[in-house]
Amino acid sequence: MGANETADKIARFMLAAEGTGPAWGVEIEEAREGYARIRMTVRANMLNGHGTSHGGMIFALADSAFAYACNGRNLRTVAAQASIVFLDAAREGEMLVAEAREQALAGRSGVYNVSVTAADGRPVAEFQGFSRSIGGPVIGESE
Amino acid sequence: MGANETADKIARFMLAAEGTGPAWGVEIEEAREGYARIRMTVRANMLNGHGTSHGGMIFALADSAFAYACNGRNLRTVAAQASIVFLDAAREGEMLVAEAREQALAGRSGVYNVSVTAADGRPVAEFQGFSRSIGGPVIGESE
Amino acid sequence: MGANETADKIARFMLAAEGTGPAWGVEIEEAREGYARIRMTVRANMLNGHGTSHGGMIFALADSAFAYACNGRNLRTVAAQASIVFLDAAREGEMLVAEAREQALAGRSGVYNVSVTAADGRPVAEFQGFSRSIGGPVIGESE
Amino acid sequence: MGANETADKIARFMLAAEGTGPAWGVEIEEAREGYARIRMTVRANMLNGHGTSHGGMIFALADSAFAYACNGRNLRTVAAQASIVFLDAAREGEMLVAEAREQALAGRSGVYNVSVTAADGRPVAEFQGFSRSIGGPVIGESE
Repeated sequence: MGANETADKIARFMLAAEGTGPAWGVEIEEAREGYARIRMTVRANMLNGHGTSHGGMIFALADSAFAYACNGRNLRTVAAQASIVFLDAAREGEMLVAEAREQALAGRSGVYNVSVTAADGRPVAEFQGFSRSIGGPVIGESE
Repeated sequence: MGANETADKIARFMLAAEGTGPAWGVEIEEAREGYARIRMTVRANMLNGHGTSHGGMIFALADSAFAYACNGRNLRTVAAQASIVFLDAAREGEMLVAEAREQALAGRSGVYNVSVTAADGRPVAEFQGFSRSIGGPVIGESE
Repeated sequence: MGANETADKIARFMLAAEGTGPAWGVEIEEAREGYARIRMTVRANMLNGHGTSHGGMIFALADSAFAYACNGRNLRTVAAQASIVFLDAAREGEMLVAEAREQALAGRSGVYNVSVTAADGRPVAEFQGFSRSIGGPVIGESE
Repeated sequence: MGANETADKIARFMLAAEGTGPAWGVEIEEAREGYARIRMTVRANMLNGHGTSHGGMIFALADSAFAYACNGRNLRTVAAQASIVFLDAAREGEMLVAEAREQALAGRSGVYNVSVTAADGRPVAEFQGFSRSIGGPVIGESE
């Protein structure tokens, strides 16, 4: 299996294994080595007190794309830190896309940039995640 | 009404008005001027693919405490940016507490530090949020 | 004058006008619209107590590339926030390159990703800067 | 020697050993376990192209206070990541104070919040640093 196929398989395995992705309606559009693009539609239970998408949900979407991208080499990897800039609000019913790209790898550390955009192309947030691999595979050979 | 009472009233108003707090089971322990402490129990639908609390949910809890704290002066305020360091995993069933403290105010900008800890006192995450007030009150006189 | 020429002219104007660039030995390799690549050699007075490049100087280099990139449209723009991940140490005498790319623009806000690498290609740091334009031109027509 | 004396000794040792502190005119006001407060006066060679203190120098001051605070237990510790919010500009000749406080420790990781203020009490920046200890002492018994 090639590197891109492995990364795709891992992203789909993680989405199926986690509680959050199905709960939030996350869908994987594309996953390959060092890259993941996913989407989610903003629902009523994702809105903040100002009536727009809660920053926590925008972060959660970006963080999920980051997780799929940084685990794609089949080395268990977790988020050590992340930073997010909120550029615009998203409304109920809008579909958001998060696109994660690997920017640097050094030893057990990695840095991934994630852009969150609305379906009309409007930038919603920019995220930078710092990952650390913790050893062991994400999926076994039989999976 | 004093500054602390106003802040408390606003936090409870925001929690009731938002979709996320009730969906996530967020409870307000204390809210006063420049301060908010809230809690949430980690549920199965908040777990990531490694079986521990999704970083997005830890961020979301911290971000909610930040939102209550930075809106407490009854000036509509939104998150411009936030950064989070993940220090430990949280398990299903654990209660997490997020405590937000106002660190600095300058014009329309504010900075809030939020600590997320588990019920056993274990540090789970540290968060720093950068807010911008956008004008207008959060609650009217009649609310 | 085209957009890329303007951006180049502004970066060189800023470098000449500032105290830091000449003090640090910063050189501009390339500046065009939404992009700047600069370099600096690590000197003895840039080392920390562990004998490697002070994180403040690595940040300062990245922040300078960010400043040139975000002012390149001739709209005075300042840093509102920045985050940096340190991936490796740099030694005295090493030349560091910082490459800033515009990632998103929304109203007066912008986000720029900056990679800092050593001459051997080793990743040293990744930086994400959040800018706000404050109005007025950086350089006048006669400059 | 008590924990606070050790921390003070280490901060002064680091300042003497590093190239940056003397070059920037950094002075230690107070260092004790989990805490450091230092100051620096903004000089002409610390100004950016807009004629105010370069964000890199404000970061560098905060990062130095962070370094003294996180090494104070005599365990070699480095910055893994840091985030800074810029709240106000500082002018040439202004004295800036950076005050670092330990916020959380978990295994080899630590989080420190650093406030940078001008002599008139004006907030200039807020910083959050994420440290990792890398083993070995900062100073030997004979030092």
